[in-house]
Amino acid sequence: MPRFKCIIEYDGTGLAGWQRQPDQPTVQGHLETALRRITGESVEIHASGRTDAGVHARGQVIHFDVEEIEDADKLMGSINFFLRPNAIVIVSIEEVDEDFHARFSAKMRHYCYHIINRRAPLVLDRKRAWHVAVPLDIQAMQEAASYLEGHHDFSSFRDAECQAKSPEKTLTSLTLTKEGELLSIHASAPSFLHHMVRNLTGTLKYVGEGRFTPGEVKQILAAKHRPAAGPTAPAEGLYFMKVEYDI
Amino acid sequence: MPRFKCIIEYDGTGLAGWQRQPDQPTVQGHLETALRRITGESVEIHASGRTDAGVHARGQVIHFDVEEIEDADKLMGSINFFLRPNAIVIVSIEEVDEDFHARFSAKMRHYCYHIINRRAPLVLDRKRAWHVAVPLDIQAMQEAASYLEGHHDFSSFRDAECQAKSPEKTLTSLTLTKEGELLSIHASAPSFLHHMVRNLTGTLKYVGEGRFTPGEVKQILAAKHRPAAGPTAPAEGLYFMKVEYDI
Repeated sequence: MPRFKCIIEYDGTGLAGWQRQPDQPTVQGHLETALRRITGESVEIHASGRTDAGVHARGQVIHFDVEEIEDADKLMGSINFFLRPNAIVIVSIEEVDEDFHARFSAKMRHYCYHIINRRAPLVLDRKRAWHVAVPLDIQAMQEAASYLEGHHDFSSFRDAECQAKSPEKTLTSLTLTKEGELLSIHASAPSFLHHMVRNLTGTLKYVGEGRFTPGEVKQILAAKHRPAAGPTAPAEGLYFMKVEYDI
Repeated sequence: MPRFKCIIEYDGTGLAGWQRQPDQPTVQGHLETALRRITGESVEIHASGRTDAGVHARGQVIHFDVEEIEDADKLMGSINFFLRPNAIVIVSIEEVDEDFHARFSAKMRHYCYHIINRRAPLVLDRKRAWHVAVPLDIQAMQEAASYLEGHHDFSSFRDAECQAKSPEKTLTSLTLTKEGELLSIHASAPSFLHHMVRNLTGTLKYVGEGRFTPGEVKQILAAKHRPAAGPTAPAEGLYFMKVEYDI
């Protein structure tokens, strides 16, 4: 049975996250409904990773198997047609080998967190970024970010509901860029713990506000204790940007 | 009477443009209503330039005169409070000299037009960009743009309802940048004709599609005849970015 890999985009605002739930609008639910309408069959869709309610994606990757598909491009058009009332779209599609798996074949995941740092409330970026009114010290945040890169026990940045076997992860890079009032935090790793990027962001925001010194972030990491770190940044600023595969 | 200059941002999506109209949500109307609630007086607000229905602003400039204002920052907070159900916000405020005029003192205006060039419908950028599915030849568009820069009779890019005395304008710069699927057209001039940026964009899009060669754009300009040029690009991709003043 042919296997298809798709890159998808979604606006997390009105969605209850990735995972299918009864009576809730979810990314998986909407996609599986669209595929059922097209194929007449129940098709299970696998994502490279789940996202929480409110989190956006520009480059989430999924795969699924369907029979008797004449043309991948037509299939993409059909799925996008059936998704039209929703905030999800297939950006690209390709047929892949049977041994490709959106989750297990992934080598590197890239997230981006958007903060708008200004006094005025958000208008054009509402539900697309975290509004932080207190002026942030970007240099301090950059220094703190550098201490978080690498292989560590990230228990201080792990949600209580996280199902990962180990709290150890390799944070390949954690960098900041600033363009006017938009501050972007870029996080790349082979895999992340639940809420990890939002928890890292909440802690970096505390550093930017002067509540933590950059040096204290080393102690927060060493504490391996969630309450030692800053708050969980809101979902609406987080974007799942890209997944890298060997194949 | 103290005069205040403000930089404002708005989401043009649900707005009938800048200019006050009875029974229509407009930027001027919402701002004047907010100021009347705060001051109890009728205050006229002047903008650096009108924008059409659906056009966004990140850096529109306004001025107005109000009596007995203790503190400009508090005034900004109050206006933003009263604007809260609306899609408009004061980003910054400062007291200026009486001879400052948002429109007449302006030396340079900057617009940006966003095109998302991809097959898939827009999700995160819906109502924030023009969706063009046909692949665009950016190099051809850049060449064409260079022929439009400078002092010309822009009758071919002027709306029939334009009230400017002369069709001659100096287009200081017209450049393109591309970042992934986002194509941005940057237009700067001391002043523009009505619909000029959208008409330039519609013509550049025709060049990108191969309907016009870059060289034909010189003839379109020389024709001084609106039907010679391309269509008017939709309002939702246009952003009024910035106004420069000597003072």
